[in-house]
Amino acid sequence: MGILKFEHPQENNSVHMTTSPLDPEEFRRQGHMVIDFIADYYKTVEKYPVLSQVQPGYLKKRLPESAPYDPEPIETILRDVQDHIVPGLTHWQSPNYFAYFPASNSTAAFLGEMLAAGFNVVGFNWMASPAATELESIVMDWLGDMLQLPKSFLFSGNGGGVLQGTTCEAIICTMAAARDQMLSQIGRENIGKLVVYGSDQTHSGFQKASQIVGIHPKNFRAIETTASTSFALSPEVLKSTIRSDIEAGLVPLFLCATVGTTAITAVDPLGPLCEVAKEHDMWVHVDAAYAGSASICPEFRYFIDGVEGADSFSLNAHKWFFTTLDCCCLWVKNPSALVSSLSTYPEYLRNKATDSKQVVEYKDWQIALSRRFRAIKLWLVLRSYGVGNLRNFIRSHVKMAKIFEGLVGMDKRFETVAPRHFSLVCFRVSPSAIIKANPSLSDHDNGKHKADNYKLLNGVKCVVNEVNSKLLEAINGSGLVFMTHAVVGGMYVLRFAIGASLTEEKHVVMAWKVVQEHADAILHPPCIN
Amino acid sequence: MGILKFEHPQENNSVHMTTSPLDPEEFRRQGHMVIDFIADYYKTVEKYPVLSQVQPGYLKKRLPESAPYDPEPIETILRDVQDHIVPGLTHWQSPNYFAYFPASNSTAAFLGEMLAAGFNVVGFNWMASPAATELESIVMDWLGDMLQLPKSFLFSGNGGGVLQGTTCEAIICTMAAARDQMLSQIGRENIGKLVVYGSDQTHSGFQKASQIVGIHPKNFRAIETTASTSFALSPEVLKSTIRSDIEAGLVPLFLCATVGTTAITAVDPLGPLCEVAKEHDMWVHVDAAYAGSASICPEFRYFIDGVEGADSFSLNAHKWFFTTLDCCCLWVKNPSALVSSLSTYPEYLRNKATDSKQVVEYKDWQIALSRRFRAIKLWLVLRSYGVGNLRNFIRSHVKMAKIFEGLVGMDKRFETVAPRHFSLVCFRVSPSAIIKANPSLSDHDNGKHKADNYKLLNGVKCVVNEVNSKLLEAINGSGLVFMTHAVVGGMYVLRFAIGASLTEEKHVVMAWKVVQEHADAILHPPCIN
Repeated sequence: MGILKFEHPQENNSVHMTTSPLDPEEFRRQGHMVIDFIADYYKTVEKYPVLSQVQPGYLKKRLPESAPYDPEPIETILRDVQDHIVPGLTHWQSPNYFAYFPASNSTAAFLGEMLAAGFNVVGFNWMASPAATELESIVMDWLGDMLQLPKSFLFSGNGGGVLQGTTCEAIICTMAAARDQMLSQIGRENIGKLVVYGSDQTHSGFQKASQIVGIHPKNFRAIETTASTSFALSPEVLKSTIRSDIEAGLVPLFLCATVGTTAITAVDPLGPLCEVAKEHDMWVHVDAAYAGSASICPEFRYFIDGVEGADSFSLNAHKWFFTTLDCCCLWVKNPSALVSSLSTYPEYLRNKATDSKQVVEYKDWQIALSRRFRAIKLWLVLRSYGVGNLRNFIRSHVKMAKIFEGLVGMDKRFETVAPRHFSLVCFRVSPSAIIKANPSLSDHDNGKHKADNYKLLNGVKCVVNEVNSKLLEAINGSGLVFMTHAVVGGMYVLRFAIGASLTEEKHVVMAWKVVQEHADAILHPPCIN
Repeated sequence: MGILKFEHPQENNSVHMTTSPLDPEEFRRQGHMVIDFIADYYKTVEKYPVLSQVQPGYLKKRLPESAPYDPEPIETILRDVQDHIVPGLTHWQSPNYFAYFPASNSTAAFLGEMLAAGFNVVGFNWMASPAATELESIVMDWLGDMLQLPKSFLFSGNGGGVLQGTTCEAIICTMAAARDQMLSQIGRENIGKLVVYGSDQTHSGFQKASQIVGIHPKNFRAIETTASTSFALSPEVLKSTIRSDIEAGLVPLFLCATVGTTAITAVDPLGPLCEVAKEHDMWVHVDAAYAGSASICPEFRYFIDGVEGADSFSLNAHKWFFTTLDCCCLWVKNPSALVSSLSTYPEYLRNKATDSKQVVEYKDWQIALSRRFRAIKLWLVLRSYGVGNLRNFIRSHVKMAKIFEGLVGMDKRFETVAPRHFSLVCFRVSPSAIIKANPSLSDHDNGKHKADNYKLLNGVKCVVNEVNSKLLEAINGSGLVFMTHAVVGGMYVLRFAIGASLTEEKHVVMAWKVVQEHADAILHPPCIN
């Protein structure tokens, strides 16, 4: 394109004319620079505060008001990335990142992302790039095998898997399929009667999905969980909730069960839940976004026992399976339910392969038409590490979580709060330690309310929560580690989630020291004021 | 992690233990290899058949039944990519790719994708990586300025922009927002009365979006267009359609107007359409997925005149704005409408920045919670090329389309079919050329039906369509170029879409020769049998 000349009198014609924006040698030169930039970033990522410490609006002050008219060299841009973007990052790849759930990256996934972006095919149908479709079906069967999913979820058993962006998308697609199946039986005018069920621990994406597909907000059930079931959804309570909905003239549609809830990795009992749901012909989706990956290890497979009774199952490879964002693996037993809800076949996409019905058309398994070649990164992860290493990566995270759990247990000021199933440890400063540090609190607890100090608080429980919240804020403010919180059963708990690919045992030990030091400062009386 | 030891008697303990999957030096070594692999691919991409010539199921025969237990070296994997994946690709980055719409890649976008995948932050809220959120708001204002969008669509004017994956997602979000606004006025039980409007040229994603958000299928209006308006949606027909819907007790909700339709890049008249819609308080979305990019050139800005009357506007930077898939730019005038439909605020995401309401929380502007750092690739594209070059890239494509249009015009056997607004030329072998090559057809046209030859055909029109369909199949079967088709007003047309980043004038000229040669073969009598 460099040979073309343009004359536009209203414009500055002195613009430096770049040749093709995809010139191979320029691509090579700049590509090598960015590889080194990122490799150096990984080498030095520990030196940055894990949680970004910038203030809202920081970037607008540093960047120009508008896009440049003339091109800028990559050297300048990379300097700006270093100077202005990196300080505004929260470093999910830091070995000291223990927040939310991990976004475990790997070299293999990164290379797969490069290949996908390099080929940049838009694989909406088979013909638009047969390899993209076929590799996806193959790796989804591979991974399904590794998880010992029932054959009925695999292409080899007339089910099948698809790569979506996120769990929310996976739930939208399956819920829309369930909705349309049900409405075709009871009439579309009854959409307002459909009810969907999860627990108060189910991911917020479930509520969002139900809003998007038009479930009446009053028909969204977040069934309460309690410590008595370790915050897992109770089949009995589900059953009675469904019963009263049916008595009220409503129609049970969909259950989202979770293996490894967001707050504390609770595990809903899949078998009994599916039994309840099946009595009412409901669709059961199993959301194993984070924890599903663990089931590639034989010793952790039991967490998804009962999945054979479900209709669909998903896990996010971009959480704990060493794959870059985004990559949600969804398996369904009945692909034709998805297809009949989500398919379109406009004239401009008509082609012989589709008409032959010998090929999978993934555009009909998902929300969007366009789709990235995500399968190649999953393929690279599976091949570069192999099943053996992938299991060991997972085990090493679980082992480190056990080590952390042990450290918590040795410090009498702390307690772990929920059972540790995977690589997340939930803990807090215990009420007794806080009372010990603040003897006045026991008076408070006995109802001798000191109005001046505690007028905003509602008993010791609140004080305990507040102390733990302050502790977390102090820890994250140090920049040395980043962890987040949850509230379950009224308890504020600190979440320590292991899974960043660069994390080693020494980082876990160091993180615990950071926790202890900040606890020392906070618990030295008075810890509240 | 390399120091950890695992003992699992049920497994082969001889697995070669890979060290951290993100070891910086291994990342560097393998990253450089893949950069060279992709650069070499671009250098040689012309040698591959543009449209993949593999048969359904080709890949399953070449790959193992299951994932490997042991790791495999990157060298082996890259050889397999070359040997088994590349033959199954349809080469969207080939300079001879003229199908669908372009997926114009660029070095800058690729580097941005690398940085996004390298940092691999999950920027659901501001705190999870302030730079990801803030850069997105900044580049969306930059690009909005370049398009001369009204201030009301920009953050600087209390609107704002967000990066979504695809147009379908953008329509789902805006339609859900419109739906919930309307239902809050008329009651949720009236969801079955909501009607959405587009034309028979509107992208199929619009229909899919309306299905997903629960619009009753019988309330989806694909208003017929005709050659008399060059297949643009007529405001008068829209008006009368709305009127009869209202008379039938239905509620007009949403209009999707298109600038540059998928089949032939027709342009719906935004101003008059918005006027009609506004009379009924409908939400108007403007889908400029492909053609919107052209409006950064002052001389092409008029195509989106009237956008000031719309509620939302989107274009896909991954089509014709030199950005890797996926990157759909959506601007809305009223972000709070999106937010009130799509927001969730679970406890584990609570933080001071969000509570302060000083920051944008993009999770509430889109379907999913998790989101990739897409803004950085758009930022790199804007800076690496600058507004001047980006305009010239667009102009060079339009100029090449004009050249192709001229070539078509010089060959009397062909005709262009619809007005060429952008870089798409729609053309076909003309009926007269086909009749000339097959004199018996004129008898056929006069009703002297030759039953043996034409029993499946319905007059000359069908013969003309069939000849053009055969021509396209022959062209694509050559592997030398790839173009696709559309059917408008009953006419089968060949679509020649320019926009691949490596395409130069010589490729366009060569493509025309390929078309002519295949036409020679097909038109030499008899062209039908």
